Amino acid sequence: MAKTLAINAGSSTLKWKLFSMPEETVIASGMVDRLNLPGSIFKVKLPDGKKIKETQDNITNKLAAAMVLTRLKSYGIVKHLSEITGVGHRVVAGGEVFKDSALITPIVLKQIKELKDYAPLHNPVQAYYIEVFQQLLPEAKQVAVFDTSLYTEMPAVNYMYSIPYEYYDKFGARKYGAHGTSHRYVAHRTAEILGKPLSDLKLITLHLGSGSSITAFDHGHALDTSMGFTPLAGVMMGTRSGDIDVSLVAFLAEKLHKTMPEMIDILNHKSGLLGISELSPDQRDLEKTQDERPKSKLALQMFVDRVVSYVGSYIAELGGVDAIVFTAGSGENGVEMRQAVADKLNYFGIVIDPAKNDFRGEEHIVSPDGSKIQVLVVPTNEELMIVRDVARLTK
Amino acid sequence: MAKTLAINAGSSTLKWKLFSMPEETVIASGMVDRLNLPGSIFKVKLPDGKKIKETQDNITNKLAAAMVLTRLKSYGIVKHLSEITGVGHRVVAGGEVFKDSALITPIVLKQIKELKDYAPLHNPVQAYYIEVFQQLLPEAKQVAVFDTSLYTEMPAVNYMYSIPYEYYDKFGARKYGAHGTSHRYVAHRTAEILGKPLSDLKLITLHLGSGSSITAFDHGHALDTSMGFTPLAGVMMGTRSGDIDVSLVAFLAEKLHKTMPEMIDILNHKSGLLGISELSPDQRDLEKTQDERPKSKLALQMFVDRVVSYVGSYIAELGGVDAIVFTAGSGENGVEMRQAVADKLNYFGIVIDPAKNDFRGEEHIVSPDGSKIQVLVVPTNEELMIVRDVARLTK
Repeated sequence: MAKTLAINAGSSTLKWKLFSMPEETVIASGMVDRLNLPGSIFKVKLPDGKKIKETQDNITNKLAAAMVLTRLKSYGIVKHLSEITGVGHRVVAGGEVFKDSALITPIVLKQIKELKDYAPLHNPVQAYYIEVFQQLLPEAKQVAVFDTSLYTEMPAVNYMYSIPYEYYDKFGARKYGAHGTSHRYVAHRTAEILGKPLSDLKLITLHLGSGSSITAFDHGHALDTSMGFTPLAGVMMGTRSGDIDVSLVAFLAEKLHKTMPEMIDILNHKSGLLGISELSPDQRDLEKTQDERPKSKLALQMFVDRVVSYVGSYIAELGGVDAIVFTAGSGENGVEMRQAVADKLNYFGIVIDPAKNDFRGEEHIVSPDGSKIQVLVVPTNEELMIVRDVARLTK
Repeated sequence: MAKTLAINAGSSTLKWKLFSMPEETVIASGMVDRLNLPGSIFKVKLPDGKKIKETQDNITNKLAAAMVLTRLKSYGIVKHLSEITGVGHRVVAGGEVFKDSALITPIVLKQIKELKDYAPLHNPVQAYYIEVFQQLLPEAKQVAVFDTSLYTEMPAVNYMYSIPYEYYDKFGARKYGAHGTSHRYVAHRTAEILGKPLSDLKLITLHLGSGSSITAFDHGHALDTSMGFTPLAGVMMGTRSGDIDVSLVAFLAEKLHKTMPEMIDILNHKSGLLGISELSPDQRDLEKTQDERPKSKLALQMFVDRVVSYVGSYIAELGGVDAIVFTAGSGENGVEMRQAVADKLNYFGIVIDPAKNDFRGEEHIVSPDGSKIQVLVVPTNEELMIVRDVARLTK
């Protein structure tokens, strides 16, 4: 029985999931948090559902990877590490180089490192984990799965910014998108649920979590995405502003005596739902307080408004739509939010039946039977998409 | 017969139009260009259609105003300057203070000057002209007509940016809009043409010129606009970028070793159609060259795409639309562009009949008879809106 490990490494976290393939069943999963900090946390969920948590100071990236493997053995999840025949790594920036996931070779690894300009907090650490797992599992085949590859197929009319053309040639100034693995999974799953080939469908997938993005799929291809050159653009997010007049940012930088990097930091970490509500980036906190706090309510309304606005623009770009799909934290769990978004889109024939919508984290069609435009909730599964890509590319 | 002068002052130009009221007929019009520069140009169009042009070095703002009045007398257009009983001034920034046009008082004049932060190239010079005309025409009543007042009525959900709330309180960080006088004129005129009260209509007005903006009117009120804190945001323009990921701008600033003010200058003056085409900000030049030059074609396609995208988002925000209205340079004259925009919106029932669309600069309904959503071309007339506001506020 071949086992494949999906690795999702952030700047201070390492998430992993071990799958049995080709059954696609999860054997175990875990996360290392607060890496390289006092009080690092190592958590594992075992096959029997039991959860284990260890705390240890300053777990390094390398140690974290080694601990995952030694614990897999010590908890009896694998007998020999050679059972793990494949490792799939999420990589944030694939630029225009990677139009699909890629089997790791020395050249691929070098290219991932070279793309660090486009994801300075992610690509270097993700490349590092690839090297660590090469040492720890020398027999396993490794695959890089890029957040951006889906969007390399967008038409130039949508990926180009209307700035001097030479900035595209010289610096790769274009829309790269983000959350591609999630959107890809959800789009494929939606086609399965609807019993139609993805290549026959026009879809709008709404990945609404602490980071949020919306993708328009035109017959299986990404037509457009709300994410930009970086994941700062697009719809309002938990702490990120989404779209904003750049002149306002320059104006505020002057008023606040801040540098642009400082402003970008504010736009990434102190804006969005948190910035408007002055309370929390979490929609649940805002829903609880919206009756007493006008700013909680305004933040929620703005979020819905921005999502509705993007859906409208993508219906226009697609020239129609067959299904709207909610996924990720808020998309899967935000009952009120989903209803509010659909209610504002009734004109298009997009409707959510409240009786069908009262659940969290499950997979359902929530539009009334016989709707021309289907509305679905599909919990995302990036790790499954990653191990599927490992299987596909190591056949 | 009362005469009213409409004044539209830019940083280096002074445009004017003299109306006979209440007939709303244009008596004469003119423009002073290259103010405060060698080779200033003074142009007048007389009542008989004759055009006169004078050249003189370094015409100052004050001299320009005086020349307009002395020439009106010397060409026999007015006998006594006292015939000019009203002067209406376009003012770019009215902030949140001016929810309507305003009769000039010392307080109003002071407030216009205080709003200079929001239009540093315009408000100071426009305030100056108000003072100059107070001296030159001490008996005339003067009115300020703000580009932004229309948008003070937008709901907070649309004018707020999802950044820390305090920036709104402290610095007025919000969407102010632009081209309000044009959108206002076109919306009112559309209602007249359709024979319905504006308060019964959902409209999307497309002011597409060298600067471009789109406004959603919900039953007579501005619901949203593509323009932002400044006129840099929104759709792609002649030389302006419109919406862009601010992180990309910060990234380019670093690569190009440029300050943010330098980047904003590039985004205002070297981007848009000019930036992509590397040829011209003028759609006519791009249409002529699109078969040989892929970059001309791409620029035109991007422009259409951005307009289509905004229309889709505003149909969503409005929950439907009764009419789409083209105005301003490209909107009035861009036969191909209008057709391309409508063709991409067919899904919504927005259609332009090619046989009805073959004209420039005229007022017509261009959708097929019996269309549920009307498409119109309405040449804008900001000056007429200005003198109407003078009449309304000086009654």
